[in-house]
Amino acid sequence: MTQKNIRHFIDLTDVSNAELNRIMELAEQIKADYIAGKREDYLPKKVLGLIFEKMSLRTRVSFETGMAHLGGSSMLLEEQHIGFGKREPVADISRVLSSMVDVIAFRAKKHQSVVDLARYSSCPVINALTDRSHPCQALADMLTIKEEFGTYAVKIVWVGDSNNVAASLIEAAAKLGAEIVVSSPEGYTFSDEEIARFTVGETAPGFKLSFESDPYEAVRDARVLYTDVWVSMGQEAEEETRKKVFAPYQVNGKLMAAAAPDAIFLHCLPARRGLEVTEDVIDSPQSRIVEEAENRMHAEKGLLVWLLNEAQR
Amino acid sequence: MTQKNIRHFIDLTDVSNAELNRIMELAEQIKADYIAGKREDYLPKKVLGLIFEKMSLRTRVSFETGMAHLGGSSMLLEEQHIGFGKREPVADISRVLSSMVDVIAFRAKKHQSVVDLARYSSCPVINALTDRSHPCQALADMLTIKEEFGTYAVKIVWVGDSNNVAASLIEAAAKLGAEIVVSSPEGYTFSDEEIARFTVGETAPGFKLSFESDPYEAVRDARVLYTDVWVSMGQEAEEETRKKVFAPYQVNGKLMAAAAPDAIFLHCLPARRGLEVTEDVIDSPQSRIVEEAENRMHAEKGLLVWLLNEAQR
Amino acid sequence: MTQKNIRHFIDLTDVSNAELNRIMELAEQIKADYIAGKREDYLPKKVLGLIFEKMSLRTRVSFETGMAHLGGSSMLLEEQHIGFGKREPVADISRVLSSMVDVIAFRAKKHQSVVDLARYSSCPVINALTDRSHPCQALADMLTIKEEFGTYAVKIVWVGDSNNVAASLIEAAAKLGAEIVVSSPEGYTFSDEEIARFTVGETAPGFKLSFESDPYEAVRDARVLYTDVWVSMGQEAEEETRKKVFAPYQVNGKLMAAAAPDAIFLHCLPARRGLEVTEDVIDSPQSRIVEEAENRMHAEKGLLVWLLNEAQR
Repeated sequence: MTQKNIRHFIDLTDVSNAELNRIMELAEQIKADYIAGKREDYLPKKVLGLIFEKMSLRTRVSFETGMAHLGGSSMLLEEQHIGFGKREPVADISRVLSSMVDVIAFRAKKHQSVVDLARYSSCPVINALTDRSHPCQALADMLTIKEEFGTYAVKIVWVGDSNNVAASLIEAAAKLGAEIVVSSPEGYTFSDEEIARFTVGETAPGFKLSFESDPYEAVRDARVLYTDVWVSMGQEAEEETRKKVFAPYQVNGKLMAAAAPDAIFLHCLPARRGLEVTEDVIDSPQSRIVEEAENRMHAEKGLLVWLLNEAQR
Repeated sequence: MTQKNIRHFIDLTDVSNAELNRIMELAEQIKADYIAGKREDYLPKKVLGLIFEKMSLRTRVSFETGMAHLGGSSMLLEEQHIGFGKREPVADISRVLSSMVDVIAFRAKKHQSVVDLARYSSCPVINALTDRSHPCQALADMLTIKEEFGTYAVKIVWVGDSNNVAASLIEAAAKLGAEIVVSSPEGYTFSDEEIARFTVGETAPGFKLSFESDPYEAVRDARVLYTDVWVSMGQEAEEETRKKVFAPYQVNGKLMAAAAPDAIFLHCLPARRGLEVTEDVIDSPQSRIVEEAENRMHAEKGLLVWLLNEAQR
Repeated sequence: MTQKNIRHFIDLTDVSNAELNRIMELAEQIKADYIAGKREDYLPKKVLGLIFEKMSLRTRVSFETGMAHLGGSSMLLEEQHIGFGKREPVADISRVLSSMVDVIAFRAKKHQSVVDLARYSSCPVINALTDRSHPCQALADMLTIKEEFGTYAVKIVWVGDSNNVAASLIEAAAKLGAEIVVSSPEGYTFSDEEIARFTVGETAPGFKLSFESDPYEAVRDARVLYTDVWVSMGQEAEEETRKKVFAPYQVNGKLMAAAAPDAIFLHCLPARRGLEVTEDVIDSPQSRIVEEAENRMHAEKGLLVWLLNEAQR
């Protein structure tokens, strides 16, 4: 009773380099139309089922506005609506829900839940954030970088925790040809196995991945500095330890000054000013956090149009 | 201040046999168009108010996707939004809400709440499940049966608790001309008064209703076996007793084998595998549970189009 | 990083008298079209972000149905979705949200929250009810009065607590040219400073504001009697005191009889029958509470169309 031949978007490694470039191209084109005042019916009356196991303002708003602009609509399914895996088996939820909606985006606590849902779904499933990866965020990040520099081929430095957002950013860089340096403290780095997974298959020309635990060394000539919170939801017990370990990785004015003069600052938000980033960086002219958040919407439109109108054969 | 001349859909006995056939015809036609890729504007910009006193995944998703496909939209009103009967009288809620939305679907704990709401509503009210009946489920069931056998005139056996789902199924069978056998244990059967209510008015040719407490006797030559959970929400205290009483009514491979060779299995879901039905039945090729759930959406589209475009004079 | 040149609608004093008349004109025209069965695409694919810190049935339903009729849609953001001011700073929420939606309506506990949100928003922000004012309610009230009497120039008497609803009603009367008498018990009246704020700028011909603590004196020749609950959410501790103080201000048959023979009764709902108003008034032919509630929808449509299609330059 598992479904065959459905293309999902659970990780960036699910798409080829050419496919990812096509998604980005659609995103850029639909954004240009949007700015020119056009909201065309790419997905008329299509319905997105949005399953959220955890709160996520940007994820929700970007998907819902995106679907509305494309002529479709969304249905928010929260824990109390769906009783995920408690009230009935995931297989039943997936088969029933996918028999009615056109596409599902799932923001899950555990990555495996998205994999399980997709297994039984007769419509495409999008990973809208899990503990393992955040591919839609990486689409928005790369769109922001392309808009800023006209190319993906710039040096990006991830500063801080080697987490789900960083994982997807590496996968995107591998497929689109960016240089990425990960600067994490000892004990908070990716394993060799993880790195092999992120960079599986053919990588794009220009892709380069390296690791440098000294953040000042890492950011030299960097055009993009990217960080995220030190303590994610569910890690509250480690809060004090993490604050100490990550303190040298704070993105502050001094670290920004060590990067290229035209460097921009990215953050997937929400941010904690005074911890992983200081006000004088996140609220400065170098910050692109609002553009980056808005690009969630544009990037996801490209993804939705590709997934529903081009990818399923 | 009660409203006159509004046609509601609170029970199947609210519509004539001809009207029910028309609803089913619309459902079949709109489903055929949908499968052919057409989602036509039957209800452009119409708004459905969906009131839920209890969680119900299928009910919600089927109504919301249905409205979206027809060019309309839905608004989910949960207990915390509406404070049903607590924050203000039902009469005020009904008059105000119905002055703005085009149709209301209400999934209520108590049947009387739907009746009360309808009394004051200036727009049609649909019963989206109560403790007494589940007419929208019966529409989906009969659509599934018609698609399978090309006719409603087959032998359906309800196995288990004589509950709200069974009640509406009997009413649908009476109006569309199916044969139905109810196989419930002693103490869990319908009263004569209830049966008289289900079959009030002219019944369709071919309708036959009987009761047979022995499930193996009941299912002989049956084309449809239908069951539901033994313990509904709110009956948790009776759980152990019910499990014992209903054990002989489990729909398992042996019981299915006692039915007609082409028999199908229906269940309104959620199901508890290993209790009222075994895996080898519900997950077998004879099971139509996913089609049946999907048909909630198609059947409700027929109902909505009939109620809004044809029934109000 | 605050936004410039965006027109918001936080209080009626944000618009000129001419602009308010234009909003009312749009509301009347779009309502007439609606009654004639036309739901035209004034706001095609536009998205309203609806932020609710407190439950509000009328506010939510009127905005959501309004947007749907105009060709747009809404997204409900409740406390658990947005974690207003807790999960991240209001500035970040505002900048991110307004980068994706076209307009925001915010029902806030504290007026200052709406002001703060607007400060950072790149799209128009509507006050959908605060502790200080309720301008959308006043639009609906004045529309109801105009429909009843063909003019705004009638004597309106506010009976009871000098609250947020009364404040906006005074502002509307000042700009549209109604006579308004406020009849509140001592200790529950507006300060001179508040009154100066409500009537700032040029007031319309025919506007007259007076205060009369004796309700029977106040309602003489009145065409409109308007009251609200005595105990608002958050004032539960004062309940017993307030019940005593306001008892003489109950709108009952005797008080209605002291007004003009064609007087109508208004109430923004929810109402507590037997306290601020008796059944024989609120459920009588003189009551316009349902029309008034429905006019929330029509008035807000006028506002939304003006704000999005005419006000931003």
